[in-house]
Amino acid sequence: MSQELRSRLFDEMNGWTLVDPHTHINPHAPAAKTLADILGYHYYTELAHSAGLAREAIEEPGLDPREKVGRLVENLAPIENTVQYSWLIEIARTFFGFNDERLSPGNWEALYDNSAKQMSQPGWADDVLRRSKLSGVFLTNDFDDPLTGFDTRRYIPCLRTDDVVFHLVKPAVRERLQMSTNMTVENAADVRRAIANLFQHFTKHNARACAISLPPDFAPAPVDAATADRALAALWRGNPSADEQRAASRFVFWTLAEMCVEHRLPFDLMIGVNRAVYPGGVYQGQDLYDSRVSLIQYRELFNAFPSVTFPISVLASVTNQELASYSWIFPNVVTNGHWWYSNTPTFIEHDLGARLEAVPATKQIGYYSDMYKLEFALPKFAMYKRCLAKVLAERYIIDRGWSETRAIDLARLVLRDNTTAIFGVAAE
Amino acid sequence: MSQELRSRLFDEMNGWTLVDPHTHINPHAPAAKTLADILGYHYYTELAHSAGLAREAIEEPGLDPREKVGRLVENLAPIENTVQYSWLIEIARTFFGFNDERLSPGNWEALYDNSAKQMSQPGWADDVLRRSKLSGVFLTNDFDDPLTGFDTRRYIPCLRTDDVVFHLVKPAVRERLQMSTNMTVENAADVRRAIANLFQHFTKHNARACAISLPPDFAPAPVDAATADRALAALWRGNPSADEQRAASRFVFWTLAEMCVEHRLPFDLMIGVNRAVYPGGVYQGQDLYDSRVSLIQYRELFNAFPSVTFPISVLASVTNQELASYSWIFPNVVTNGHWWYSNTPTFIEHDLGARLEAVPATKQIGYYSDMYKLEFALPKFAMYKRCLAKVLAERYIIDRGWSETRAIDLARLVLRDNTTAIFGVAAE
Amino acid sequence: MSQELRSRLFDEMNGWTLVDPHTHINPHAPAAKTLADILGYHYYTELAHSAGLAREAIEEPGLDPREKVGRLVENLAPIENTVQYSWLIEIARTFFGFNDERLSPGNWEALYDNSAKQMSQPGWADDVLRRSKLSGVFLTNDFDDPLTGFDTRRYIPCLRTDDVVFHLVKPAVRERLQMSTNMTVENAADVRRAIANLFQHFTKHNARACAISLPPDFAPAPVDAATADRALAALWRGNPSADEQRAASRFVFWTLAEMCVEHRLPFDLMIGVNRAVYPGGVYQGQDLYDSRVSLIQYRELFNAFPSVTFPISVLASVTNQELASYSWIFPNVVTNGHWWYSNTPTFIEHDLGARLEAVPATKQIGYYSDMYKLEFALPKFAMYKRCLAKVLAERYIIDRGWSETRAIDLARLVLRDNTTAIFGVAAE
Repeated sequence: MSQELRSRLFDEMNGWTLVDPHTHINPHAPAAKTLADILGYHYYTELAHSAGLAREAIEEPGLDPREKVGRLVENLAPIENTVQYSWLIEIARTFFGFNDERLSPGNWEALYDNSAKQMSQPGWADDVLRRSKLSGVFLTNDFDDPLTGFDTRRYIPCLRTDDVVFHLVKPAVRERLQMSTNMTVENAADVRRAIANLFQHFTKHNARACAISLPPDFAPAPVDAATADRALAALWRGNPSADEQRAASRFVFWTLAEMCVEHRLPFDLMIGVNRAVYPGGVYQGQDLYDSRVSLIQYRELFNAFPSVTFPISVLASVTNQELASYSWIFPNVVTNGHWWYSNTPTFIEHDLGARLEAVPATKQIGYYSDMYKLEFALPKFAMYKRCLAKVLAERYIIDRGWSETRAIDLARLVLRDNTTAIFGVAAE
Repeated sequence: MSQELRSRLFDEMNGWTLVDPHTHINPHAPAAKTLADILGYHYYTELAHSAGLAREAIEEPGLDPREKVGRLVENLAPIENTVQYSWLIEIARTFFGFNDERLSPGNWEALYDNSAKQMSQPGWADDVLRRSKLSGVFLTNDFDDPLTGFDTRRYIPCLRTDDVVFHLVKPAVRERLQMSTNMTVENAADVRRAIANLFQHFTKHNARACAISLPPDFAPAPVDAATADRALAALWRGNPSADEQRAASRFVFWTLAEMCVEHRLPFDLMIGVNRAVYPGGVYQGQDLYDSRVSLIQYRELFNAFPSVTFPISVLASVTNQELASYSWIFPNVVTNGHWWYSNTPTFIEHDLGARLEAVPATKQIGYYSDMYKLEFALPKFAMYKRCLAKVLAERYIIDRGWSETRAIDLARLVLRDNTTAIFGVAAE
Repeated sequence: MSQELRSRLFDEMNGWTLVDPHTHINPHAPAAKTLADILGYHYYTELAHSAGLAREAIEEPGLDPREKVGRLVENLAPIENTVQYSWLIEIARTFFGFNDERLSPGNWEALYDNSAKQMSQPGWADDVLRRSKLSGVFLTNDFDDPLTGFDTRRYIPCLRTDDVVFHLVKPAVRERLQMSTNMTVENAADVRRAIANLFQHFTKHNARACAISLPPDFAPAPVDAATADRALAALWRGNPSADEQRAASRFVFWTLAEMCVEHRLPFDLMIGVNRAVYPGGVYQGQDLYDSRVSLIQYRELFNAFPSVTFPISVLASVTNQELASYSWIFPNVVTNGHWWYSNTPTFIEHDLGARLEAVPATKQIGYYSDMYKLEFALPKFAMYKRCLAKVLAERYIIDRGWSETRAIDLARLVLRDNTTAIFGVAAE
């Protein structure tokens, strides 16, 4: 009974056209060009590496895409259990007519050729979007992205700010900030003006969010101008103390929040990542985390900016209860998706159940794909929809006696309507 | 099969008369007078506020109860998914003949009138207790409560000690302590005498527990008299350092534990809350927490007071495994209910499963309602019983082959018998 | 459907012969001699004590085994709910023809006598191993264990190193190190030579792992020779500062990792235990933990020793997501079993689901028994197999449409093949 019920709920959800509120899509090359763009996703390279494949075999300079896929396929057997592998198979079956359960040395070449043919068709990216039922896809744009040459209604800009908050000490970042704003950036007032300029540029190009990922030890706080000036001067000298680096980061971060007020942009916070924990790892396969983080670190921020909506992602499932509780209490805190190391069914089901039971339905952004290539939205959203169907079937329809209609109404908010309402994008 | 089994278990449990070992009932006005007392519960005001209703609209001075309910009802749609909303509907349906699934602008006035009529009947509170199958209800009494004018067998006093441990620095609290004990309170010896006096007063009036809620950074420790004297002197001066405040709190807390030995009272510890994290929130809707707390902070306390039973509630589910483990090892540590932000089915099921599998059956106090008005015991206990029925059905009867009888025997301990045995109250 | 499916999966797994990669078996007395050796397992003594039985009643000097069992049996009723109690009943029913659901004052004596008879049969230990389908059992050997007098193919040595890392300050430990290596141990170079000697001795006797349990605040780091020399000198003087104690522990620990490189031994890390938190507890029933620990503390270690495999156990389930993530990223980090306070079905199912979905299948050592007497492998592994069958049935076969064959192939890796491959032991 429960399985059929789950199927019915899934089928209903699967008919909706959605907006994906966080991806890393390059709008100038949104879809994969070969299977190497699919298998090159860090989940496959890092898992294959973890299971024994040398980084050098994956990242050999000048490596031919076909050869890269071949090397990876020979090392995928140990990761066939992972949910990430199931995305790969779902892509192959849905888009490229693959009929097997697994990719193997014996069948990958046909898939490579079939998929390359499809991918080279004119309008392939639009085709993937249409078949994935996506009307819009949020980007992750460097602050100095010109944001031109693509349809910003479909590929919606989002101002990503890790560089300016955490890496301003690097001369190249300061230089990029000065170039992109055509300003000289010396003191706190200059930084504020430059950031204001970025926001104008981004909102002019239909940006719908400001976003940042944050390490577990970051705690936002306002910084007075004199302290900020001193901290920035230390940055330019290239030898800030830990205190000065912290003050500079806090100053820039706080300024971003102030600009979100002015420009009415939600500020996506992705909390908890430590970068380059495993520097010997493959590209994008080096980051991990310390799960000892608390939203209490954001207390002052949430109180200081009641008019800014903070869609929040947490990296570790142990932080999810705090996220649910803070969203239940603070009007400006919103739950946002299931991020990275928490984006597997066991964690999604637990975290989703906790949110649905205690956070207002209008304050839950169910899911984003975080994808680099459009082909991944379909299997990732499908995984989430299966989890959502399971939780609604078990916790609402069976445990609490809800009608299917009512459960579907809740799913529609969480999957579709909240995203369009919170970010102010047009639903299809 | 599992659903019918769960129903049978639930029905059996639902026949038992229970004692509710922790509430905030006012014994002089235990039941609601209008629907505003139901909808005024902080869960509804804070969730409606979180979903967009202004605090001012809820807390307008002199606001008429009917108008307050009307304003809230218009803002409840976003919280219909929450389990707290289901309590409201269960109250309306069980006690007031409400027949709809939701409260709406079109149906609330009839409910308001029907419920007001019922609530104004003589003996309404007793009626609610009877229909909720409660023979006794623990209170949360200020230390200077006279404890007179009500039946302390039914409304059982509990000495709540947050004020005296954490707020003695406020002149009003010291004054209340001096007034209620008729003593001058200067030094550590005075404080000890005053607290002894409170315990005598409370136990004379049938108090069955001492209780306190604690912030995540509190770590009890004994404090010598000289240090305590200095800390108290700083308190009276109104400018204690952080160290002095900590020493004073520790001294008073330790003294409470010593009095629990003498008066053979369990000491309820409710661990992990940060107060006023969101000061702009509605009344009682401002507290949150930092889940980075450990029971290792209570190691010295548990060792120092082997004769005191510590029924312990933790605010965050991530602390529940520690609670289960400490209760499994320390004879004087007992699990107590599912508190506040962990009082939703997803967390209850996980936390309950963990406790049942590893903590002696006699050391688990299953549930308390934490209610402010009697009407809430019924839906809250029903929620817990459904969780307990589910966990027993799935983890014991199905997974481990237990008989239903045996599962029901376990439920009876956890729901009923442990509470009466641990707090020494008469079962009905 | 799901229950029959789970049974089929369980039955299949139950046919395999396994190696148990972590136990505390004494190879000279591997099986129980009386029921007191079964009921004397710390789970029963500590839970009975927690539920009210005095330590003195359990640990009375010269207590007769039969009398000890009698006393414990009279105090087991409160722990019949625990999963640990179910192991006891499964042992009694499987090995000793016990037919009841519970042990009681009325039936334990017959069991005592029946079991004593069986246990005294020649070849009882081998019989237990055969019926438990174990071809090998890892030991936990003190560093000065001569490792003679038993078959090291069946009872596989493992160098346990807590003493040398954390207790070298005790004169007896230093003395044992000097005696067992026949070396004078003064400075860092001496310690290194002595440890090298231990590794030679152990590997000569077929040791397949180095192992250690670690407190939550430990963070490995290299220590230079001069600092190590000073720290060791302070140890010998008997008054090391906290810094010196930490430096000495780090130095020895790091040296162990270096020897693991040289001798190609996996280094089992069991992370998170605080010793003697409840010093008044029964033997082996005094340890607890602070769940605020992170694998980020091991970052430098994992990077420094890419050729050493680290099978990792975490004490608290809240650390399991980090374990899964670190195993997913670091090639040399492997998940290892479900340890102690996390070894109950609620935690196993959650933790196992998380691992299966995101860690390469070849990097998961499913289970070890941690037993002190051979009779416990059977019920403990059976508990794990039931959890594994449940998770595979629900999360793979039902949720993801896997075939039973494919699920069983995954189970075989996790239960059997990874253990033999990672530790380099022969499968039967």
